[in-house]
Amino acid sequence: MELGLMVVQGIGRRSSMVIKIKKVYIARRSRYQEIIVADVEDFGRCLVLDGYIQSAEVDEFMYHESLVHPAMILHPHPSRVLIVGGGEGATLREVLKYRTVEKVIMVDIDEDVVNISREYLQSFHQNSFNDPRASIVIADGFKYISEVNEVFDVIILDLTDPYSSDIASALYTEHFYKMVYRRLSDDGIMVTQAGSSFFYRDVYNRVVQAVKNVYPYYLEYQTWIPSFGCACNFILGSKKYNPKEYLKRSYIDKILQERGITTKFINGARLEAMINLGIY
Amino acid sequence: MELGLMVVQGIGRRSSMVIKIKKVYIARRSRYQEIIVADVEDFGRCLVLDGYIQSAEVDEFMYHESLVHPAMILHPHPSRVLIVGGGEGATLREVLKYRTVEKVIMVDIDEDVVNISREYLQSFHQNSFNDPRASIVIADGFKYISEVNEVFDVIILDLTDPYSSDIASALYTEHFYKMVYRRLSDDGIMVTQAGSSFFYRDVYNRVVQAVKNVYPYYLEYQTWIPSFGCACNFILGSKKYNPKEYLKRSYIDKILQERGITTKFINGARLEAMINLGIY
Amino acid sequence: MELGLMVVQGIGRRSSMVIKIKKVYIARRSRYQEIIVADVEDFGRCLVLDGYIQSAEVDEFMYHESLVHPAMILHPHPSRVLIVGGGEGATLREVLKYRTVEKVIMVDIDEDVVNISREYLQSFHQNSFNDPRASIVIADGFKYISEVNEVFDVIILDLTDPYSSDIASALYTEHFYKMVYRRLSDDGIMVTQAGSSFFYRDVYNRVVQAVKNVYPYYLEYQTWIPSFGCACNFILGSKKYNPKEYLKRSYIDKILQERGITTKFINGARLEAMINLGIY
Amino acid sequence: MELGLMVVQGIGRRSSMVIKIKKVYIARRSRYQEIIVADVEDFGRCLVLDGYIQSAEVDEFMYHESLVHPAMILHPHPSRVLIVGGGEGATLREVLKYRTVEKVIMVDIDEDVVNISREYLQSFHQNSFNDPRASIVIADGFKYISEVNEVFDVIILDLTDPYSSDIASALYTEHFYKMVYRRLSDDGIMVTQAGSSFFYRDVYNRVVQAVKNVYPYYLEYQTWIPSFGCACNFILGSKKYNPKEYLKRSYIDKILQERGITTKFINGARLEAMINLGIY
Repeated sequence: MELGLMVVQGIGRRSSMVIKIKKVYIARRSRYQEIIVADVEDFGRCLVLDGYIQSAEVDEFMYHESLVHPAMILHPHPSRVLIVGGGEGATLREVLKYRTVEKVIMVDIDEDVVNISREYLQSFHQNSFNDPRASIVIADGFKYISEVNEVFDVIILDLTDPYSSDIASALYTEHFYKMVYRRLSDDGIMVTQAGSSFFYRDVYNRVVQAVKNVYPYYLEYQTWIPSFGCACNFILGSKKYNPKEYLKRSYIDKILQERGITTKFINGARLEAMINLGIY
Repeated sequence: MELGLMVVQGIGRRSSMVIKIKKVYIARRSRYQEIIVADVEDFGRCLVLDGYIQSAEVDEFMYHESLVHPAMILHPHPSRVLIVGGGEGATLREVLKYRTVEKVIMVDIDEDVVNISREYLQSFHQNSFNDPRASIVIADGFKYISEVNEVFDVIILDLTDPYSSDIASALYTEHFYKMVYRRLSDDGIMVTQAGSSFFYRDVYNRVVQAVKNVYPYYLEYQTWIPSFGCACNFILGSKKYNPKEYLKRSYIDKILQERGITTKFINGARLEAMINLGIY
Repeated sequence: MELGLMVVQGIGRRSSMVIKIKKVYIARRSRYQEIIVADVEDFGRCLVLDGYIQSAEVDEFMYHESLVHPAMILHPHPSRVLIVGGGEGATLREVLKYRTVEKVIMVDIDEDVVNISREYLQSFHQNSFNDPRASIVIADGFKYISEVNEVFDVIILDLTDPYSSDIASALYTEHFYKMVYRRLSDDGIMVTQAGSSFFYRDVYNRVVQAVKNVYPYYLEYQTWIPSFGCACNFILGSKKYNPKEYLKRSYIDKILQERGITTKFINGARLEAMINLGIY
Repeated sequence: MELGLMVVQGIGRRSSMVIKIKKVYIARRSRYQEIIVADVEDFGRCLVLDGYIQSAEVDEFMYHESLVHPAMILHPHPSRVLIVGGGEGATLREVLKYRTVEKVIMVDIDEDVVNISREYLQSFHQNSFNDPRASIVIADGFKYISEVNEVFDVIILDLTDPYSSDIASALYTEHFYKMVYRRLSDDGIMVTQAGSSFFYRDVYNRVVQAVKNVYPYYLEYQTWIPSFGCACNFILGSKKYNPKEYLKRSYIDKILQERGITTKFINGARLEAMINLGIY
């Protein structure tokens, strides 16, 4: 067995991934969770929250592009965007690629995650925190949504997994999705990451059902994220535009091109394929 | 840390997966490798060779269908099929679904794997070993291919990973692929599993290049296999039919239907998506 | 990280030992516990119950001699002996070395442990089960002690750790030690293994206190057992003979010699040293 | 399996200890080795070098007192002392307890270990580095011994294990012990920690033989150190005083008392017991 520092990450209920650490930048408990930033073998620089890699240098773009672009492409003119979670700033980075966006609010509960990311995860946020269109709010996402008076075109839920800790569990409920619905414009779209449907089918099914109960249109898709040890599921809810109708290869490519969006992972062929691949 | 029996499976070069075992049926070293059959949490009954899950009850069909059907669909009338490796009999099971198949030879180096699979992996092979069209040969695949005089329509290489042990490394070389080429009919097709391109990019690139050097047409595709902890890559080489031209959604579905093939994972939408998703 | 089969054994509350397995003979859940018999690296053949090595080929004599001989030496003429637990038969083996012993009853709750030991742990029990002086009773030790009418000179509690599972917890209480007291002859002695005082100080202190509350004389001693990953503590309770007075180097050697006892680990120098070393 | 940060420490050749980390203070590779300072469950603050705990808050006194006091007690008037290794300063702390000591030189190869210890391991060194009698030299111990012209009464080798890495291997050879011999006064004494005789019997036997080949008198003893996961062996070599003759309970206590030495672990009863317990 290899010796020295390791990070153990949950995969399934009783399976986990052990990864050799090369260098630890910071490892401590915030008010909400255990935060680690480290360079690990196979995946580069990582942000780990409560034993789950949230973002890894080698594949964070796969996750963040898969989370952000389907919803942003589907909306004809995303101008006001809300991100709940997303403390390391990479979701923000993807949203800010859209020139239509006039205002992005990012609400994260854990100030320590945001500050640690600012310091150690430069290549993840790429200074998005300083973009004049961006506002960072440290608050409980549930409370924020329940109190905010603004309306958004796209709301992106970039949360820890519904099963990995208690922090985010209230943000995967029908009650919450209804509040999100009310904060969306008439053609607004929400999207959430949803953990692993393969390993936590029961949890996942509840989340999908909750989205379906609230939104007239929905879309499920998944992407294998190497540093997660599994595919990550995403669920999109839409008030007006049917994602299954719009998100076709040529339409996706057209929109990305029109809006001048450069990506490393998502394009028309791949996003259509992700949707057609189905979930498992 | 959970106590008791675990199986540790390699994922990347310095990352691995620890899985709780519920019950061990057999665990011993054959002449060639360490063989384990066990019921594990999250994945059910498993065959583990030298610390890598080869087949797991919950997802072996994803792997075996992805390995077998693209090549079989691409060939207009697969009649004579050779499988190298595939000791647990599930590749054989998939091949035998085709009524056009008159003869399948399965060559595995390790008699113990075959015998242990016969006894403990009934739901994997489903008695395919006893099909009158099937012959099981215990031999070194490299030696077998170099000496056999027969010609096959499809040759399927269902081997351990090119990096997981030394057993199979000679079967991932250009030299070997040339021998395979000579044993294929004029419109013959070969396909090999190729481990993980993400974690072993250098090894994978060598294997792809070797296939490309030998076959006029080739196809790369990958599928995330949960019990492997990563996506599995496949490389297909074809003498006459261009897979990129034929393996379209409607054609795939048509062929599967015409030939009366029932599958749990592969269908036109999914196989086309797998191909379009690209590899990473 | 090394791949393949491992056994993970608890050491402290949040530290554990990972040991490579060479060969598994049996691994299954009985009515009471998870039972594994395996050959492991560094420790040879092992019996593992609920994730804790109970006996390992390379050092089981250290444990079993330390458990049995102090109490047996202290008693002037041990004739009737009761063992609670000790399913693999090695405690029985040590007791039967004494020619003064006319009768040994071994009471183990788990018939599967006894049967599996008979089959796979020959070098541990050395056929002690078949000695005409030995009787094996499958019963709950607590219930057995509360109902038995016989009286014993020495009662040996060879149980799983007080913290490793719930099976044995009632057998580490003052209530139980009082019942044991009533089943001892007027000069009778009991001894119990007591897990690790270092890692479970609070549990250990409760057990020591319980023995002290019941017996006029007591003795604590510990021995480092390599395959346990820590020292194992023992607590002896005596009705008449003060162990601190009798268990001196020369007396120990004299008694062992007079009674013709051959040991691999315990002798006068070592047992006196173990006692003088104190516990930690 | 518990998630998050772990340190994996070698125990035997193919067994290891996994310990949950609470907080990492520093974790990086120096020129010579991987250095970690962390608070871990069960053992408190730890210094870990190349995957082996060198010193843990809860039991470092057991190790350091066992290393230092036998040699210091055996010498009638230890005045000049050399420590090779011992970067965290706890060996130095124990040596400085002796008022007879006029001068201690501590030679460690790794400046980073010393500096990191100064900063994070205050309770280990207790500012011994600043004692006017102490000099800290950053140098290769082998080279230092081969070049130094001074003579010492006691030389203490506080090195990483002979098998854990290559750094220290030359300092466990007969060649090195001869050089040490030449740097000792006529009644001088050397002592070395020697890793685990149980898990690395062959390595240990070579080291013992090397000491025996050089010194007229020698002593082997061991102490179970909980945070090491095993007993640690020590070997003492003496030019004039026979340790087996002098190191008796009452003599030990007398010397400690005469010299006003306060200890937490070593005393006459315990040191005599450690010697009588023998090694295994």
